[in-house]
Amino acid sequence: MIVIMATDATADNLAEVKRRIENNEGLSTRIMYGVERNVIGVLGTLPPDLKDEMELIPGVMEVVRISNPYKLASREFHPENTTIKVGEAISGGPEPVIMAGPCSVEDEDQMVSTAKAVKAAGAKILRGGAFKPRTSPYSFRGMGVEGLELLKTAKQETGLPIITEVMAIEDLDTVAKYADILQIGARNMQNYNLLDAVGKLDMPVMVKRGLSATYEEWLLAAEYVLAGGNSQVMLCERGVRGFETLTRFTLDVAAIPVIKRLSHLPIIGDPSHSTGKWYLVTPVALAAIAAGAHGLLIEVHPNPDLAKCDGPQSLTFANFDSLMNQARAVSSAIQEQAAVVS
Amino acid sequence: MIVIMATDATADNLAEVKRRIENNEGLSTRIMYGVERNVIGVLGTLPPDLKDEMELIPGVMEVVRISNPYKLASREFHPENTTIKVGEAISGGPEPVIMAGPCSVEDEDQMVSTAKAVKAAGAKILRGGAFKPRTSPYSFRGMGVEGLELLKTAKQETGLPIITEVMAIEDLDTVAKYADILQIGARNMQNYNLLDAVGKLDMPVMVKRGLSATYEEWLLAAEYVLAGGNSQVMLCERGVRGFETLTRFTLDVAAIPVIKRLSHLPIIGDPSHSTGKWYLVTPVALAAIAAGAHGLLIEVHPNPDLAKCDGPQSLTFANFDSLMNQARAVSSAIQEQAAVVS
Amino acid sequence: MIVIMATDATADNLAEVKRRIENNEGLSTRIMYGVERNVIGVLGTLPPDLKDEMELIPGVMEVVRISNPYKLASREFHPENTTIKVGEAISGGPEPVIMAGPCSVEDEDQMVSTAKAVKAAGAKILRGGAFKPRTSPYSFRGMGVEGLELLKTAKQETGLPIITEVMAIEDLDTVAKYADILQIGARNMQNYNLLDAVGKLDMPVMVKRGLSATYEEWLLAAEYVLAGGNSQVMLCERGVRGFETLTRFTLDVAAIPVIKRLSHLPIIGDPSHSTGKWYLVTPVALAAIAAGAHGLLIEVHPNPDLAKCDGPQSLTFANFDSLMNQARAVSSAIQEQAAVVS
Amino acid sequence: MIVIMATDATADNLAEVKRRIENNEGLSTRIMYGVERNVIGVLGTLPPDLKDEMELIPGVMEVVRISNPYKLASREFHPENTTIKVGEAISGGPEPVIMAGPCSVEDEDQMVSTAKAVKAAGAKILRGGAFKPRTSPYSFRGMGVEGLELLKTAKQETGLPIITEVMAIEDLDTVAKYADILQIGARNMQNYNLLDAVGKLDMPVMVKRGLSATYEEWLLAAEYVLAGGNSQVMLCERGVRGFETLTRFTLDVAAIPVIKRLSHLPIIGDPSHSTGKWYLVTPVALAAIAAGAHGLLIEVHPNPDLAKCDGPQSLTFANFDSLMNQARAVSSAIQEQAAVVS
Repeated sequence: MIVIMATDATADNLAEVKRRIENNEGLSTRIMYGVERNVIGVLGTLPPDLKDEMELIPGVMEVVRISNPYKLASREFHPENTTIKVGEAISGGPEPVIMAGPCSVEDEDQMVSTAKAVKAAGAKILRGGAFKPRTSPYSFRGMGVEGLELLKTAKQETGLPIITEVMAIEDLDTVAKYADILQIGARNMQNYNLLDAVGKLDMPVMVKRGLSATYEEWLLAAEYVLAGGNSQVMLCERGVRGFETLTRFTLDVAAIPVIKRLSHLPIIGDPSHSTGKWYLVTPVALAAIAAGAHGLLIEVHPNPDLAKCDGPQSLTFANFDSLMNQARAVSSAIQEQAAVVS
Repeated sequence: MIVIMATDATADNLAEVKRRIENNEGLSTRIMYGVERNVIGVLGTLPPDLKDEMELIPGVMEVVRISNPYKLASREFHPENTTIKVGEAISGGPEPVIMAGPCSVEDEDQMVSTAKAVKAAGAKILRGGAFKPRTSPYSFRGMGVEGLELLKTAKQETGLPIITEVMAIEDLDTVAKYADILQIGARNMQNYNLLDAVGKLDMPVMVKRGLSATYEEWLLAAEYVLAGGNSQVMLCERGVRGFETLTRFTLDVAAIPVIKRLSHLPIIGDPSHSTGKWYLVTPVALAAIAAGAHGLLIEVHPNPDLAKCDGPQSLTFANFDSLMNQARAVSSAIQEQAAVVS
Repeated sequence: MIVIMATDATADNLAEVKRRIENNEGLSTRIMYGVERNVIGVLGTLPPDLKDEMELIPGVMEVVRISNPYKLASREFHPENTTIKVGEAISGGPEPVIMAGPCSVEDEDQMVSTAKAVKAAGAKILRGGAFKPRTSPYSFRGMGVEGLELLKTAKQETGLPIITEVMAIEDLDTVAKYADILQIGARNMQNYNLLDAVGKLDMPVMVKRGLSATYEEWLLAAEYVLAGGNSQVMLCERGVRGFETLTRFTLDVAAIPVIKRLSHLPIIGDPSHSTGKWYLVTPVALAAIAAGAHGLLIEVHPNPDLAKCDGPQSLTFANFDSLMNQARAVSSAIQEQAAVVS
Repeated sequence: MIVIMATDATADNLAEVKRRIENNEGLSTRIMYGVERNVIGVLGTLPPDLKDEMELIPGVMEVVRISNPYKLASREFHPENTTIKVGEAISGGPEPVIMAGPCSVEDEDQMVSTAKAVKAAGAKILRGGAFKPRTSPYSFRGMGVEGLELLKTAKQETGLPIITEVMAIEDLDTVAKYADILQIGARNMQNYNLLDAVGKLDMPVMVKRGLSATYEEWLLAAEYVLAGGNSQVMLCERGVRGFETLTRFTLDVAAIPVIKRLSHLPIIGDPSHSTGKWYLVTPVALAAIAAGAHGLLIEVHPNPDLAKCDGPQSLTFANFDSLMNQARAVSSAIQEQAAVVS
């Protein structure tokens, strides 16, 4: 951490900063005297709130943190990729893992037919929501445990492992019994009690990016899970809120290479929620793959126009099959080129 | 709801839209034939997901909802202001209600001295966090029940009612025993299970605006609580995420008159979290009052530079006292002018 | 256009809306009487400001435009792709056109060596700034005409046509003499006098998206040029302003398929300005190609760390060569798949 | 400036940074060796692009600038408020200066009646657009010189000085003949040629904040004018682009106290453009005054529903009169309190 003094800071101000830093065991300071202003470097492991404290000392202009607040999620201290094996799929490896299925579980026929179709097209994980976060209290909010049972049936029929959302601690035990990967939704990315709770489990967790979360806030949400002892965390870019209303959210495609540089955790792209329109899903999915995503999360429905939720962004079986062919082609092209380079 | 057909939509497309709408009991249609395109109006009470369904029918260009998705929160169906009485304070009336206190409860002396100071300055409600949502898992996360006990002590000493945050359903019974107003934080604005749970209580709830929530999403969060049967809901504008980094968030001051127009619920302004800097709190607080806020939520600390949380945005007792004098003056000026007008 | 009346609108309000619409020659109305509220449809070609007028009539709740305000830029009235031929390159066709070169022209050696390198790697257009928009008045603002001369030299040496920015009408004649494509920068996207002026020329113009421009505003900027009579307009997505500070801007990759759907104009991706970091340029460039971009605009410099401008986001020759190989592979993969589909 | 090295930077990397900095005449370095990483401080006056150069040297993790890039606009080097006298009005002093009038000049009667009405209500400056930036090429774009003549007539009738927008250098001589204050619109905030041109004049210039400009970018736009030699610059907060669509833009009320702290230039609030709805103008105007704005820019029209531009956000004479009474009351309340404090 670096404390930058104002041009009119006094020697006493500087001394007070130094004193307050050194009050903390294990911290020491280095002062750099400049022409316009002085700067104090802090050495040692920082208490998380020291920056706030420093900003209030008279004469301090700005405080700059120079190390990441997340340690377990950081690639700096964990250079190798984390890989997470679920069924046949390895997230975090060279092959993108495709997770597909309906927004919400509706009935057995819908789930089983979708599971079969997405498996046939090459998906390795089945998605489906039983507990649904909905903006309006009057919208369909999912089938709950009955939906989880249908997911289980679809899994038995196809062998596909399940990713499904858990919205609340009180549902966690139940959902964890059915799920192979627990999904923390964007709206719950900063539900810290829930993050703590999944941190105590020993099973894969996908943390979706909050609607307006910075990379740092997102990695700190992952850090909550990691700090609880659960190392099987993957991240999912699902678009951030922007000013454009034609799309539901703005998929931040640069987040994919950024997260791969900052962190060792697998990063998945979600083109369905970010765009909100089925006809944008395939090009944006291909973009995510081309940018290096470790996988995709795609909404597929036998009859999108009858879906109880997110119909406008769901792909038909045929469109999903076409997406898969293109995704494989793009992924191969990239891997071959990578092979040439190395 | 209005369904706008594409210029190249066929008569069959139109017929299908009509058929699908009329499948819903109680809905009927009116068709308006245009030169370039046709438009179908839907009459009756809409199922919440009909819009999504319509958007997917071939030939449909756009679907426009023409009534609010929130009913209980809407002023259209409840023209009178809701007022909420807590202790001596009436939120939603002409007099702004000032709620003040530290970001987090730290010890008895801090709480009691702050409670006395803010009461002396004119605050009517005491704030203080016992359960704290923190971006980093390594930051101080509040004293929990022990903190609630200290809030109780401060209440006993001063008579000030308490507003404090509840972060999770499992803490709700406990927090509700101590609190006079439950606060739902910005990060939990779309934690729908929690909203459902506080909707079943019979006590005031403040719903803070999510970091990137639209007015509609925010009012729908309130609608969750109202739909549960709890009519004592107030809203709090605490700044939205913007691109500027000098301030923590961007207080959307227009939200105050907008919410007053759209809804009958009281609207409170929070200049502390939105600005993140103590020296911006007073001007932004006065702005909120001038814009018509029903109250303010202000962070005050005996020694901001030693605060365990949010020090940089906390006011000293002296600065809070000065803010109160100015807020009263602005409020009086506005009320006198309103009296002249009417 | 559709005018939606408030629930409490009177019959007089409705009559006034009808009267005011029909005041305009060629416009007629259809009224749809509903249970809660009435709706008036407007038939005919709308004057551009009628929406504003309607919104102010008492009893009007909302006015919804149902046709695009841009006509010449719209695919609805021009279903075929516009293709723009410059040298060997055809923008708007199946093959992505790569435009590359330094942010700013610095000296002959830099320009000629870069032109040769990017040509060898497969670029078809040479970029280079002679007039540079800079945030600070104290930054290097380009070499002006001398820079244009160096671009000419590089063109003579390599045969590559030139794309370069014009910032002001007073420079237009000069810049147009040297340029094969005129670039309108993001900061000038709503400099309407400049758009009018390039609209009167008969040469290709690239309109970069403004930092916070909606799709509609961007297409309307193109409409300015088209309305002037110049049909050779291409668009460039270069990232929008978001809340994340690690990247300079947020490349909105969905803009690529959206623009291809809304408009017939070629759409180019700029991964250099949007990311601001050289190590993000390649993955984001590949994402743009995979999403269907008609081309790329890439900053390349012989010695990025000595560049007078935008060094951090410039690629070395070797990195650009690698990007080109990967871009070709991704583009082929996509085109092959498209061939399979059709 | 501070250069922060990566944890794995070598001694050679550090030496290269040091060498490259010291290549610049007048710069020297101080190295602070840390446990995890080393940090280099740079002393002396920085070339504007040195930060970019440093970021590219291998082993550099981050570069932090610790002084403002704007000097002439900064309060650090000019502690006293700048005041700008135009007619009777002094912008930058204790009394807010109200500037009011129609969005666009339409005819003599409109201009003269509005000028008389706003003067009677207490406005000190008359606004009116003769050259109008419009999103669509098909909208009314202003009366041009004829409009300037009508502004002159209104000035002769009332004595009110004129503020009007200049959109292009080719109009500058003409507009400057009629205007008392030149307005640079939000869309031209980064039209650097225009900023340069008004910087060479000796007359007041108002620089409106760009739709997505940071405080720093905005102050750098002012710096362009100041660096040209024109010291009469005022700033205008007119709302930034956000995700909410009910309002046109989001007025960032905190910008008012922020700018007053960072700069000595007067800061004006524009509630008309930011809200886009007449019924939000008064509360937001009062908020700006309460936050300390040096003035307001308000759209007023004799018949808003017939206005050729911005009707929905224009006030009637009666509403403007009421706004003025309230603004005076709020301003007095604040000034009295300020007097008590000092």
